[in-house]
Amino acid sequence: MSPAESRRRKAAEQLVERGLDALLLSGLQNVRYLTGFTGSNAMLLLYRDGEADMFTDPRYTVQSKQQTDCRVRIAKGKLTTSVLSELRRRRVRKVGFESDRLTVADLEAVKNELPPRASLEPAPGLIENLRMVKDASEIDSIRKSVAINSKALDAALARVRTRMTEADFAAEIDYRSRRLGAQRPSFETIVAAGARSALPHARPGDAPIGAGMLLIDMGAFYGDYASDMTRMVYFGKANARYKRAYRAVLETQLAAIDAVKPGVTAAAVDRVARRTLKLHGLERAFVHSTGHGLGLEIHEPPRLGRRDKSRLEAGMTITIEPGVYIEGWGGIRIEDTVLLTATGCEILTPTTKELREL
Amino acid sequence: MSPAESRRRKAAEQLVERGLDALLLSGLQNVRYLTGFTGSNAMLLLYRDGEADMFTDPRYTVQSKQQTDCRVRIAKGKLTTSVLSELRRRRVRKVGFESDRLTVADLEAVKNELPPRASLEPAPGLIENLRMVKDASEIDSIRKSVAINSKALDAALARVRTRMTEADFAAEIDYRSRRLGAQRPSFETIVAAGARSALPHARPGDAPIGAGMLLIDMGAFYGDYASDMTRMVYFGKANARYKRAYRAVLETQLAAIDAVKPGVTAAAVDRVARRTLKLHGLERAFVHSTGHGLGLEIHEPPRLGRRDKSRLEAGMTITIEPGVYIEGWGGIRIEDTVLLTATGCEILTPTTKELREL
Repeated sequence: MSPAESRRRKAAEQLVERGLDALLLSGLQNVRYLTGFTGSNAMLLLYRDGEADMFTDPRYTVQSKQQTDCRVRIAKGKLTTSVLSELRRRRVRKVGFESDRLTVADLEAVKNELPPRASLEPAPGLIENLRMVKDASEIDSIRKSVAINSKALDAALARVRTRMTEADFAAEIDYRSRRLGAQRPSFETIVAAGARSALPHARPGDAPIGAGMLLIDMGAFYGDYASDMTRMVYFGKANARYKRAYRAVLETQLAAIDAVKPGVTAAAVDRVARRTLKLHGLERAFVHSTGHGLGLEIHEPPRLGRRDKSRLEAGMTITIEPGVYIEGWGGIRIEDTVLLTATGCEILTPTTKELREL
Repeated sequence: MSPAESRRRKAAEQLVERGLDALLLSGLQNVRYLTGFTGSNAMLLLYRDGEADMFTDPRYTVQSKQQTDCRVRIAKGKLTTSVLSELRRRRVRKVGFESDRLTVADLEAVKNELPPRASLEPAPGLIENLRMVKDASEIDSIRKSVAINSKALDAALARVRTRMTEADFAAEIDYRSRRLGAQRPSFETIVAAGARSALPHARPGDAPIGAGMLLIDMGAFYGDYASDMTRMVYFGKANARYKRAYRAVLETQLAAIDAVKPGVTAAAVDRVARRTLKLHGLERAFVHSTGHGLGLEIHEPPRLGRRDKSRLEAGMTITIEPGVYIEGWGGIRIEDTVLLTATGCEILTPTTKELREL
């Protein structure tokens, strides 16, 4: 059985459990997860017996045959129109849909032409829940993605100069990553020097990097799976304030990683991070959550924030990335990709977290 | 008045026309269009007087202040919660929403907490319609984006070797583009050699390019605006079949460009392309539409396909990209970015379309 087929079986069990005859999937990564298809336009009808019909457009006639092992319907017009004729043909009754992925307009299009006796029911997060725990082939892709990402940073750091612009250094990182086998960055590479590092999601700019602190947040896609890492480097001799803040964030990151094990909630890990930063009087400078799941998407459940009560499980892959951001001074973030094991976790990211001066 | 402010005024006129008191925007590019904000999480409430509140999360506290000239509300929790309290505070009655952008789940979240006497009304495509005609600053960004894209192809072609893999050549293209000032590719760069070029949206693979035909489809983002171009090169002496097909596609592309002028419909341009390909007996090998608008997104309205009756107007930027795809043999596509002028159109892409043998 292909990985996609065994995932469809598992997902179909969820349909049975919820009393659904079919599930209409519109999230492209969910379709990818259940079919292997990587095109930019697709929907999937999954039935309670594990069978499925995938819908895409004529641009993907050849590619869809190569990538998927379920039935493919090539839609000449709107995908929802083909979905509807399939629903009619099969006389499906209770159809779940991804309310957190489907737009209001697409729902209306389906609702208005729904065959008599068929009904629609919101079924959000069903596939995302399955996706949280990765199988062996997924973990393998993530390991490779993480390894490429770390090698790319090393290769780029060997070429960095303080007179380079943030944008040029980001281009160098992305190029090294691609040459090492990555498909593309898993998000827009962040290279933020000096005070600009106080913007957690800074875009690389056209000014030279210069002396002082530099924040690098980068990730790769390999085999459609994401990695994510943040590292700091300091050009010149780091001053006392930087060293203090760096140590506080590193201590926080290690404490949070220490808390990661099956059975604890995502929120509990976040709490550990906030508590540790508080010991350094820096908890108010921490303006985002402690981490997030990653896989086919760079941000997936769980979210390691205050409100997420989901329990961590072996096989989950998450980031641990506390940071402090002080307007006018700068920001420090340290981030690894980690894998939940039976007893705790394995830090996948091999890059050193020693305070680095270049 | 900033470009964003004058766009908000124009959009507000649409609200008055439709009898809406406010419009809730959830499409990130629409928010970018009306505010300048480029973060990854935002919603916007635009009011009928042209005022607006933008909602984002604490990661963007500093950045949102730097990029926008409208009021910013930093939401600690879900954006929809902050949107709702603003709606309550202002006692807004009739609120439009982007039904083609908003998910069913987000609509439910707003609906369930809507203040008494307020109501929701679908208002799809309102900002997308305004975005179709570009202003001077947008056209300037697109011109620069197109220029970078063409220079990047030249720079990459100067380095191409038939022993390079598709993936490595794609990496070279993206690197050159970034070093020339692009923010990132406007889509995953397509490099498809030989028979793989029959996949209109092929992903670069790990096999050497080798002798024969090579399809390159690439675009850049500059100043948040996209460019898009497809070119063919042939390694070695092109055979007669390739030459014939290439000339047919080029003739088709030129005929379609010739048809582009204010007042004609998008569908009419598509018809010209299909009619021209038919003269060569190749119309069934043309499996996508003739082109699409582009701007803040790589695919925007209008769609130059069979069904789009929208009339072209001066200031629109579109692609013209007919292609033929023959399984087992290969595909040929030629694509330019063009700008609608008062009397016809200007081909922005400067790269030669002569049959190229390397």
